[in-house]
Order: sequence, then C-alpha cells, then structure tokens
Amino acid sequence: MSKQVFGLIGLGVMGQNFVLNVERNGFSVAVYNRSKETTEKYIESPAAGKNIKPTFTLKEFVDSLESPRKIMLLVKAGVPVDATIQQLVPLLDKGDLIIDGGNSFFLDTERRAKELESQGFNFFGMGVSGGEEGALWGPSLMPGGSRDAYKEVEPIMTAVAAKAEEDGESCVTYIGPGGSGHYVKMVHNGIEYGDMQLIAEAYDLLKQALGLSAQQFHEIFAEWNRGELSSFLIEVTANVFKKVDEESGLPLVDVILDKAGQKGTGKWMSINALELGAAIPTITAAVDGRILSSQKEERVKASGILTGPTGKYTGGSEQKLIDAVRDALYASKICSYAQGMSLLKKASDEYNYNLDLGTIARIWRSGCIIRARFLNDITNAYNRNRELANLLVDGEFQKAINTRQDAWRFTIKCAVEMGIPMPAMSVSLAYYDAYRSERLPANLIQAQRDFFGAHTFERIDKSGIFHADWEEK
Amino acid sequence: MSKQVFGLIGLGVMGQNFVLNVERNGFSVAVYNRSKETTEKYIESPAAGKNIKPTFTLKEFVDSLESPRKIMLLVKAGVPVDATIQQLVPLLDKGDLIIDGGNSFFLDTERRAKELESQGFNFFGMGVSGGEEGALWGPSLMPGGSRDAYKEVEPIMTAVAAKAEEDGESCVTYIGPGGSGHYVKMVHNGIEYGDMQLIAEAYDLLKQALGLSAQQFHEIFAEWNRGELSSFLIEVTANVFKKVDEESGLPLVDVILDKAGQKGTGKWMSINALELGAAIPTITAAVDGRILSSQKEERVKASGILTGPTGKYTGGSEQKLIDAVRDALYASKICSYAQGMSLLKKASDEYNYNLDLGTIARIWRSGCIIRARFLNDITNAYNRNRELANLLVDGEFQKAINTRQDAWRFTIKCAVEMGIPMPAMSVSLAYYDAYRSERLPANLIQAQRDFFGAHTFERIDKSGIFHADWEEK
Repeated sequence: MSKQVFGLIGLGVMGQNFVLNVERNGFSVAVYNRSKETTEKYIESPAAGKNIKPTFTLKEFVDSLESPRKIMLLVKAGVPVDATIQQLVPLLDKGDLIIDGGNSFFLDTERRAKELESQGFNFFGMGVSGGEEGALWGPSLMPGGSRDAYKEVEPIMTAVAAKAEEDGESCVTYIGPGGSGHYVKMVHNGIEYGDMQLIAEAYDLLKQALGLSAQQFHEIFAEWNRGELSSFLIEVTANVFKKVDEESGLPLVDVILDKAGQKGTGKWMSINALELGAAIPTITAAVDGRILSSQKEERVKASGILTGPTGKYTGGSEQKLIDAVRDALYASKICSYAQGMSLLKKASDEYNYNLDLGTIARIWRSGCIIRARFLNDITNAYNRNRELANLLVDGEFQKAINTRQDAWRFTIKCAVEMGIPMPAMSVSLAYYDAYRSERLPANLIQAQRDFFGAHTFERIDKSGIFHADWEEK
Repeated sequence: MSKQVFGLIGLGVMGQNFVLNVERNGFSVAVYNRSKETTEKYIESPAAGKNIKPTFTLKEFVDSLESPRKIMLLVKAGVPVDATIQQLVPLLDKGDLIIDGGNSFFLDTERRAKELESQGFNFFGMGVSGGEEGALWGPSLMPGGSRDAYKEVEPIMTAVAAKAEEDGESCVTYIGPGGSGHYVKMVHNGIEYGDMQLIAEAYDLLKQALGLSAQQFHEIFAEWNRGELSSFLIEVTANVFKKVDEESGLPLVDVILDKAGQKGTGKWMSINALELGAAIPTITAAVDGRILSSQKEERVKASGILTGPTGKYTGGSEQKLIDAVRDALYASKICSYAQGMSLLKKASDEYNYNLDLGTIARIWRSGCIIRARFLNDITNAYNRNRELANLLVDGEFQKAINTRQDAWRFTIKCAVEMGIPMPAMSVSLAYYDAYRSERLPANLIQAQRDFFGAHTFERIDKSGIFHADWEEK
C-alpha cells in the first residue's frame, strides 16, 4: 500500500477543512486526532470517498506517511503543541518536517525550532488566516522556518492557499527563518483588531449622531465596499446588519452584548511593539477598546454618574457626515497599516527575519480576514521603494490622506463635541500629525528630565551630551 | 568599637545623598562601594566629620554592622543587583535584611525575595523617588517585602522620608509583600510619564497656536502652579523657561533637541497593563510619544512630504485658549491618575498585594517627582470610599471634570483643526467618554467575530453563549 503525502494532527474545524482542501488539490492525507470518535465521524461524513486515511495511534499515523514526512499540527496553541511534539518526535526520522499551523506565540516557535533543528528535524511555524472558510477554500499562509525545508511543502501550500483575484497569485510565500511566520501572523491579527475597532467607531458615531437603522447601515457599508474601503471586513459588516433576530424581531446586532472578547494576539503585538520601541497607537487603542468594552458593569454604573454633551449633530447634512466618516475610516486605516508595517520593518532588523514587506502585503490580498483591495496599494508602494521608511511617505498614500484630511478632522471634531469615544481614529490622526512634525515638544521633556534627574540632553545646534545647572540664572 | 546601625552599598549620587540623609537623622552608617576611590572621596568631603564609616571589603562592611543587619543596595538595576546579592549572602547571618532601593523590575524583586527568604534572609524591594534632592532631603519611599522585616527599618525610613506639607506625615508606608514596592514605583514612574507628556502637549499647542515666548510660558506655568495644578513638575516647567543658554542667548529649552529618552519603567507599566487586561491609554500615549520623538530623522523627512492645516488659531482670545488648555491639562491628568490607580487595584488582586490605594496616594504627596496638591484629593476620594472602582466616579473628581469638559473638548478640537498632535490629551478624553458609555460599539465587533470565526456572543436580554448562522436570512 502506498504511503500518504501529507499528515495532519488535530481535527478541529480548521483541521478538518484544511485536510479537505489539501486532498481536493490532489495530495493524499493521513489524519490523527486525540479522540478517536472525531476521526471516525470525520471519515464517515465530509471525508468519505476521499484519499484521506484515518489513523488511531501516532505510530500508525507516522508509519502511513512517505519520507521525509510532512506533518502539520492544528492543535491549541501553548502546552498542547509542546505535548504533541514530545509524543511525535520519538517516532520520526531525521529530516522529517513538523509544521505548527496554530496561533502560537512567535517566541515559542523560535524555541521549538531551535530544539527540533538541533535534533535533526525540520520545524515550521505557519500562520494560517481565513477562519473555517479560508481553511477549506484557500487560506492566506505565512510559513516561517528553514528555506530548504519549505521547498518540500511548497507545492502543497501553493496549491491550497487562496488565489489573489487580481492576478491569480497564490497567497503564500516563504516568510523567513525561526518564528517569523507566526510573528507576521501576529501582526496580521493586530491589524485586524485595528480595522475592526475603526469600523466600530465609524458605526458608533453615525448611530449616535444620525440614529441610522440597521438597514441604512447595511446600505452604507455595502456602498463603501464598492470603493477604496472594499474588503472582507467591510463586506462582513454590511452583511451583519441584514441579520434579524428571530426571537425579538430586532436586528441581531442590536441584541448582542457590547463586551468584546480577545484571544491575545492583538495584545501580544502591542506588548512586542513596546519592547521593540515601535509606536502602534491605533492597534493598542483597539486592544484597549476591547478591554474597556469588557468592563460593562463598571461602565453601566459610571454612565449614571459621569456627564457629557447632550448636543445632537449640527455639522450639516447627514450625507456630509456619512462621507466624512468614510474618509476618516480610510485615512485612519492607512495609519494603522503604516504602524503595522513599520513594526514588521523593526522586527525584521531586530530578529534578522529579512522580511519582504511588499510580498507580505501581497499574500494578505486574499484568503485572510484583512484581505482588501487596499493591500495591492501597499504592495505597489513597496514595489516603488523597497526601503520605504513608513507607508505614509509613499506618494499615493500621501495623496490619499491629503484629500481626506479635512473630512477626517471634521469627523473627530464631531465626536469630541458630541462626547462619542473614538480612541483609535483620534490616535491615528495624532500619529499622523506627530509623524509629520519636524519638531515635537520633547525638548521640554528633556529639559524637565535634566532639571530633576540630571538625565542630560542633546542640542539642535551641535552634537554632544549636555547637562545644565538649571537653578542658576 | 560600636557597630553601625545601617549599611549602604553603591555610592552613586543617590547613594551618597541617601546616606547623608540617614546620618543627619541620627543613625550611624557604614558604606561600601565597588571602587575604593569613590568611597575615599566621599569620606573626604561630604561625609567628613559624620558618623559614616567607610569600608573597603564586603567582609569589613558586613562586620561593621549591628545585628540583624540592615543593608540597602543602590546599584544599577538588573545584573549588578544579582551580582551584589550573590557576593553579600555568604557573609550574612539568617535574619539579616537586604533592601534593594534601585529601579528594579518588580518580577525580579519577586524572584529575589523568594530565593533569599527561602535561605532565611529578609529582602525588601523599595521604590525611592525624588531624584538626588529627594534622596538628600527626603524622598518618597515605597518598601515592599515581609511586614515583620519592615518593622526593623521603619524608624529609619520614617525619619528620612519626605514630610507632607499639609500634615507633616512621613511619605513612607509598608506597601505590601513581594515585589509590590517596586510595582508601585513602576506605576509612579508611568504616571510621571503621563504628566510630562500632557504638560508637553499643553506647551506645544500654546506655542504653535499663539507663538508665546519663554518668558510668557514661565509666567503661565508659574500661575498654574498656584492653582489646582500645583505640583513639582509644573514648578520645574515654570523654572525651565527661565533658563537662558549662554552660548546662543536663546532660552535653553529652545535649543534642546526634541528626542526624549527613557529608562524603561513607563514601558514596563504599559506592558504590564496589557498583560493584566487594564486600559491605561494616557500613559501608553506618553510612552509612544517618547518613541515618536526619538524618530527625529524620519520625522524631519516626513515633514517635507506630508501636509496639514496651515490655519492659525481662530477660536477667540489668547487668554481663552490658555485657560482652556489649563482645564484640559487638569481633566486629562485626572484620567491619567484614574488609569494608574485602576491598574494598582487590578494588580493588587492579581498578585495578592493587598494595596491601600489611599495610603499610596498619601506617600506620593511629597518627596517624589509627581508630588502635587492633587494627591490629597485622591487620598480623600479613597477615604470616602476605599473600594472606589475608578477615580472618575468619585463625586469631587466628577465635578472637577464636569466644570472643565467644555474647555477640554474645545482644546482638542483646536489641536485637531490646527494639526497639532495631542495624543495623550485626545486619548484621555476618549477614555472618559468610553468609561461613561453604557453601550460601546463592541456589539458590532462581537457580531463580526461570530460571523467570520464562530467566536460566539452574549445577548443583552438573556444570559448564555450564542452563535448565529449569519448567511441565512
């Protein structure tokens, strides 16, 4: 009996769908799951009649794979990954490849890669984005590890990944060594947090200012999805507003509790940016936004105590505000991606990942949650200048913001005046205004620090480190 | 020959001054420094004729101290602390006390406390704030460790700490177990970052909008220092503007380079808050502000490419804006402290520190960098309600913000309109507006997450976890 080409451990929804995708593309698969019942059920129904071999011990699983073995894990990040690797390793031969396709923390991946490579095995940390649908019909894949080992699985990954609408290119590329695949996935997820928070703020302002109905929101987001904001998340948002709750007859979105959950990757990105000394205020505002949303009970109490403006929107026509919010959303989104790409640049230097930012934007064009027309523009910007310091200084993005900045400022002034919190949009604008400031007021901070702590300062007119005797006139 | 009461290792400026303070208060001291020359010079000059005994080996140092020994380290945080402890421990007796008075990371302090306590020694991590002047004339002290061990040094610390102007109380108290002293110091420093950033933003707006001179800024800050903003940092700021650069004849602040340095404690606080799931956007904006300031070369380039409003201030009289900025600064400051105190509350639960927030505010009233009249108000708020969920919902602070919020919103609208970055003030207002929101737009985020990732949601009308089939109408 011939051996299977590809092995997968972990038959959650993601795993089940990923296997169907691999098999549909012509590669035979062996599967293993900790609980036997899941495997049996899977083989009975969606996998019936397909070249998918069920196995019920890890030994049987490993023996059913051709050499060098290509084994992907889709198990819960953290301890389960280490436990599975530990059980698997004694059964493997040198040169076999393990791919961790979960949402692992990139430093865990670095550690695992070092351990396994020192024992003669190959190891990959691969970001997989696109949810259940993506896993089945084409995810965006971010594999990081040894370049030679990647060659072994490149045909499979190229086949199963999403294809970009524009040019049919496969949404996968070799990202870089060590934990770089999971690092890039972390940044993808943080950007996703930013997009979602910005959309939520746009919705909130329009809802409070204009009292729009779910049907109107459906139409607005559907309209926005035909323009420069065109993206999976705007499309999802448009569709969310169509869903009616059967019990209450209300739009479902209106009966959903306003406490946002999080799985931690956005938080990881904010922490890592602080550690590397990179500013990503829009994304951190999105993380903070979820934290504040989760403090529902405190907010309900505070809402009875704390006061705010009672004024309605007085800035002009409804359409004027709707258009301004669309522009503000797009300008803020540019800032958010500028921060994310800058962090990737910094991390690439810090961890020697040698990341190709334009290619990373290219593999996000389809399959993943942040897929958008916009990512073509980012790829183009890096094609024009591979060493771009920041997306904002690319000519096209500069123009895109410039034509929108009056609307952006108008939107935030409306929010400030009406008492509607727009932390991510506000801080995006502050980021833009700070980044384009030749001079920031940090000279005063340095003066204070030298005054009370003798921390010294530099001067604008000559180099060197100085300290002043501030008390003497 | 009788033994010395207190020992100190590390004769940097802080150490030299702290020893003079201890001796001036009637306690004999033995000192040791790694380099012999520093010790000799110290004894020759500021310590001449005082009950301060120089020692030149650690053994001589330890032998010169009465039992149980009370030894304070003021050496660089990190490896030097571990190295010093390692050399010291073999010379000590069980029951001796080591106090780390440096800016150590609180988890390092937790680790050291566990290790030393398991060997029968006592260990304290003590935050010391107030810079050189504070060390000499009275710092604010934040000692954390075993309560019994604290009793041994309480008389010394009570004597040397700063005394509050209002009631003469000593600015020291037993903070809590383990790393709590250094944790509280970390939060103190993060709040200091917030204060400095907010002051810098106030200065920036007034400078750009009104083109005020250094002399005018001196007068404005001196004036502010007589009101509700009265604090060490406002006083320092007022004095900074008086200093003239001898070389150029310009105000010194104007020739200082706008790249702010940082030693890391603000960053630690932002990272820890993310880890604990607490939102401290004002303080994180201050950390990000320093990061962006340090990207001077990028900013200079971007300033030639990116556009912004050219408009001048058109909002009314100069005095109107000056007064509005003062109010915005105070309201933002309340938000910043509310975030810091909330983080302390969360950390107290998380790490079992059992912190007394009102007392912590009390020991910050004098000696330290953030000392301010304002801290009395915080103490009073906790006296009214020990379990206060957030400073903002205290009646006095609620009133303080309410009377200022029109001015606060006016200030931020001016900044947005003029293109002046005010990230910390903007995000403080967004924090206020979010915290007082009974309903945030996180319902949309939960809908999106359930739509694309089946992450489920809660409902407003009944308990339970739900998942919708979004595609079906």
